[in-house]
Amino acid sequence: MSLCKLTILPDNKVIQVPKGSVLLKALTDAGIKIDSSCGGQGICGRCRVIAEGHYNPETTPYLTDQEISQGYCLACTTLVEGDLTVTIPASVQLGKEKILAGTRQEREEFDQKLAIGHWQIDPRTRKIHLKLPPPNLNDNLSDLERIRREFRNRGINREIRCGLTVLRRLGSALRQGNWEVTLTLVQADDCPVQIIDVEPGNATHRHLGLAVDIGTTTVVIHLVDLLSGQIVDTASAVNAQRQAGDDVISRIIFAQHGGLAELNRLILDTVNLLIDELCRKADIQPEQIEEAVAAGNTTMTHLLLGIDPASIRREPYIPAATLFPVIPAVQAGFKVNPQAQLYCMPCVSSYIGGDITAGVLRAEIHKNPGLTLFIDIGTNGEIVLGNQDWLVAASCSAGPAFEGGGVKCGMRAAAGAIEQIRIGAKGYEPEFIKVIGGGQPLGICGSGIIDALAGMLLAGIIDRQGKIRTEIKSPRIRRHNGIAEYVLVWASGSATGKDIVLTEIDIDNVMRAKGAIYAGFRILMREMGQDFSQLDSFLIAGGLGNYLNIESAVLIGLLPDIPYDKFKYLGNSSVMGAYLALLSNKLRLEAEDIAGKMTNFELSVSPGFMEEYLSALFLPHTDLNQFPSAAQLLEAKK
Amino acid sequence: MSLCKLTILPDNKVIQVPKGSVLLKALTDAGIKIDSSCGGQGICGRCRVIAEGHYNPETTPYLTDQEISQGYCLACTTLVEGDLTVTIPASVQLGKEKILAGTRQEREEFDQKLAIGHWQIDPRTRKIHLKLPPPNLNDNLSDLERIRREFRNRGINREIRCGLTVLRRLGSALRQGNWEVTLTLVQADDCPVQIIDVEPGNATHRHLGLAVDIGTTTVVIHLVDLLSGQIVDTASAVNAQRQAGDDVISRIIFAQHGGLAELNRLILDTVNLLIDELCRKADIQPEQIEEAVAAGNTTMTHLLLGIDPASIRREPYIPAATLFPVIPAVQAGFKVNPQAQLYCMPCVSSYIGGDITAGVLRAEIHKNPGLTLFIDIGTNGEIVLGNQDWLVAASCSAGPAFEGGGVKCGMRAAAGAIEQIRIGAKGYEPEFIKVIGGGQPLGICGSGIIDALAGMLLAGIIDRQGKIRTEIKSPRIRRHNGIAEYVLVWASGSATGKDIVLTEIDIDNVMRAKGAIYAGFRILMREMGQDFSQLDSFLIAGGLGNYLNIESAVLIGLLPDIPYDKFKYLGNSSVMGAYLALLSNKLRLEAEDIAGKMTNFELSVSPGFMEEYLSALFLPHTDLNQFPSAAQLLEAKK
Repeated sequence: MSLCKLTILPDNKVIQVPKGSVLLKALTDAGIKIDSSCGGQGICGRCRVIAEGHYNPETTPYLTDQEISQGYCLACTTLVEGDLTVTIPASVQLGKEKILAGTRQEREEFDQKLAIGHWQIDPRTRKIHLKLPPPNLNDNLSDLERIRREFRNRGINREIRCGLTVLRRLGSALRQGNWEVTLTLVQADDCPVQIIDVEPGNATHRHLGLAVDIGTTTVVIHLVDLLSGQIVDTASAVNAQRQAGDDVISRIIFAQHGGLAELNRLILDTVNLLIDELCRKADIQPEQIEEAVAAGNTTMTHLLLGIDPASIRREPYIPAATLFPVIPAVQAGFKVNPQAQLYCMPCVSSYIGGDITAGVLRAEIHKNPGLTLFIDIGTNGEIVLGNQDWLVAASCSAGPAFEGGGVKCGMRAAAGAIEQIRIGAKGYEPEFIKVIGGGQPLGICGSGIIDALAGMLLAGIIDRQGKIRTEIKSPRIRRHNGIAEYVLVWASGSATGKDIVLTEIDIDNVMRAKGAIYAGFRILMREMGQDFSQLDSFLIAGGLGNYLNIESAVLIGLLPDIPYDKFKYLGNSSVMGAYLALLSNKLRLEAEDIAGKMTNFELSVSPGFMEEYLSALFLPHTDLNQFPSAAQLLEAKK
Repeated sequence: MSLCKLTILPDNKVIQVPKGSVLLKALTDAGIKIDSSCGGQGICGRCRVIAEGHYNPETTPYLTDQEISQGYCLACTTLVEGDLTVTIPASVQLGKEKILAGTRQEREEFDQKLAIGHWQIDPRTRKIHLKLPPPNLNDNLSDLERIRREFRNRGINREIRCGLTVLRRLGSALRQGNWEVTLTLVQADDCPVQIIDVEPGNATHRHLGLAVDIGTTTVVIHLVDLLSGQIVDTASAVNAQRQAGDDVISRIIFAQHGGLAELNRLILDTVNLLIDELCRKADIQPEQIEEAVAAGNTTMTHLLLGIDPASIRREPYIPAATLFPVIPAVQAGFKVNPQAQLYCMPCVSSYIGGDITAGVLRAEIHKNPGLTLFIDIGTNGEIVLGNQDWLVAASCSAGPAFEGGGVKCGMRAAAGAIEQIRIGAKGYEPEFIKVIGGGQPLGICGSGIIDALAGMLLAGIIDRQGKIRTEIKSPRIRRHNGIAEYVLVWASGSATGKDIVLTEIDIDNVMRAKGAIYAGFRILMREMGQDFSQLDSFLIAGGLGNYLNIESAVLIGLLPDIPYDKFKYLGNSSVMGAYLALLSNKLRLEAEDIAGKMTNFELSVSPGFMEEYLSALFLPHTDLNQFPSAAQLLEAKK
């Protein structure tokens, strides 16, 4: 029996397998857990790996010709024919793939773009391994000079800088590693070489960074392997600043009343709690995290850095900075390597922040010749319109309804949230409910709220003004403390032991949020002389949940009534933009270009905005001509 | 009566004086205190000022033709003839001139070298004043971008960096100063512009730095005005690390036994105490100190930065670093501006430190075509030999006798120390005693010890082996607890209420110290194929006191017997070298060149060192042929 050498990347595991083995079984036997929900029958198309060498793939409808030419194959239908190198994308390897934000589709997109070199891994820091000649009485250069000499020998003649923590550890690292040492350097072409870490021996196999999204409501952190680009793990939590108010304006006011240090402490508490969780789960020390990129709106970025945001709120609305210099992460209060650097994604203006720049970077609007409309639905709703030539952005004060804020049983898109719901096929009953993580629901998140509202409208539970028809005879439709509400889930079926309801007040908040967003779309399109029909794509980002039902969103008038295939849901584009800027210095500079060319458009001062807003306070809209497909659905239902 | 405009620098005071006024009186009337010990009679030559404009100086023997051509004149014999600008050197203006270390001669040398541009004021940081257009809705750049734009308008297109403290203060400084602001920038040609401080309004009139000498025994700090180059004030104290041992070896051992953090804390305590004293006396805030340069031997520099010095003591004697990167002073623990940078003078090797590089920079050995021998007598004695083409350095384990260590009534050169003493003209009595600061003595410092030993030898109180002739009948010569001693000052005349004595053990320690130093001179000269007679100059630095009597030093064999006019006493050349590196970035780079080209010579492994040392354990030496003038004096005395 002839054996073949199988090299498995990115783990760099090498095994011997008999010629003719099925690749999926070979990988599984080697302890690699592969996503293959059909059990290896070739019918789910999930076990997509990239092979190089001698292999025999069966033809499959799950791969395009381009993908096949790039080496993609399904592990379950591919035979090992000789020596072979197989790369397992993070989205395919179970246990490794823990990313919470973003859809499967999105993860595959990232894997592939990295695999084909569309995005290159080229982080701002890199590790180098040096083997130095041990000193003796005739070669008695100091430890640092010995390293300088090695750099010169390698043709690096720039000045070398390092901080005290490195200087203090240099001697012991060199001696512990028997004059082999690994340095982490900051890449910078025309400046002194900066050493930010020193480890004994060869430690180039591990290089970690953090991509951080500082949301007004939620903080999400990816722990990233800077060698492979893989997301090792993700942690998220509610921003502890919420105790000081739900939106940025309340936080700024809180800061103005002496609360700046408190807000700064709260966000750092959240960040450090998550860093701690990531370190524990990945079994690493915080010192091993050597870079961080954070994306947040302008106010959040100021509060993260402890900068007074007061002038953001005062006319003429000036932030302290938009393009933030790189600073030592510990100076900012991050519990990571003392020399790690923190880069904050560049902001555009007081109300268009680094989260939006990150979103554009991730969505690649700035590279697309076609016209894209992008919305990041968070505590605010920020809209970007543009293409490779120009970008405009505007911020709508939408409020946090789509993040579950201002909604009685609302919650963020986390385990226990109703993310999909269908109502009205059988009378006034919900007929299908999908809960994130399965089990009984705790509450309802953005995508569920959109679904519920659309279903209630179609079922006639609410009218086009969002009023509940309390005259309907159904136990689910009732008044509670004088407020009309609809019961989504009875107490007996909920995880809280209480009815999960949607009240008229909730609906009102949701309608005001969607009204502000839709009015924003309209004004921005009009001001730029564009029309919805000219859109090449419509991208939706934010923590709505992973299963945004476009039909529902159009039906309630949150999204314009354009062909559904133009819509794409991106999930948390802020953290993924930060992830890209962490992976590649080139992409970081691209983000600065994006921020530099993006024009801020002030919706509130635009004539016509209030009129557009008021017209949008209907389901889907006062003007049904703008929503022909929704009108048709509603008509059919009648 | 015609009035003339008199502009007084560096205070930039402008007054009107009648034509024909005596300059000294005009200045005195204007409240400027001028050093003029003869009371304006033109016979002390101290009131040297630099005039430009219309004036009529009397001829004086106190000024050379070159000085006169540079505008120097004596204020007491110069008449104001018209409008006139007068620069008052720091050494001449009383109240301003508070420098403790260094002789008057030395201060005048510094003043003049700065005045004629031999040394230029060009510190690593500079302040610039910006007047920015206030923002409005149409010009709503962020605060930092507004500054970036101003830089671009001024043709500065490099990246701008700043730390968090600056970012946090930027907004309030701009608004407080009504969009006028003063930035402190780090000068660096090819790198991002670094903003290290921001102040509202125009604060360019004040720019302060620290020159710090970290001695094993004593710490001296100059507070320096970086605009005028003036030393605003000086503070000094005993290095609190002394409790962990007198010399560097004891400190390294202490550090090895878990005492590193403690030693680091102790030296920072001393430094911060002195900074606090300087700030209080000058009525400034620590935040106003924006740069620091420290000079210390290699071990002291390591301990200042909290770097383990263990390998300095272990063969092959490797320090962690010799050329230290610039670091944030607060990171090192200095209580100054949070963004101030600390530069440590570059070291050469484990036993030739930044204090010696500073000494060479100050003494300009590296610029002199003639051969110079330089000794810094501190807790160790470091010797440098060289000229503009080459430099070698060696360290002698001399011990701290000349700093008063290991001497019963010894003390450093501070108020209360006997710095000059003459013995033996009338029998065995001291005939002249000079105490630093006047008053009754507390003890005796290095220059006094040298004088005393020489006097005791000439008077026959000790023999050439340094033994006290106890057979002499004098109450001053006695035994105390079995140890022979000589009473310098009776208890009735001392500030301590006890007799001030020199014991045979003291003398033994001093002889071993001077023997080690002289042997070092001999070996270094021989190894370099040089002879004392080839010396162009012989420079002595260290805390001996300001009145080193060369005749005494030659007589005891500390210094070689060469023409006395070749000797020059420099005082604390370490702190003055640090001062120069603080004043000028060019001089700082020069110091790095000096450290780079200085060769370390290991005395202890040199064949013949022990023989030279043993021969030098006589007064002045076993071989009187090496000390012809001393031999003649001793012969004459017989």
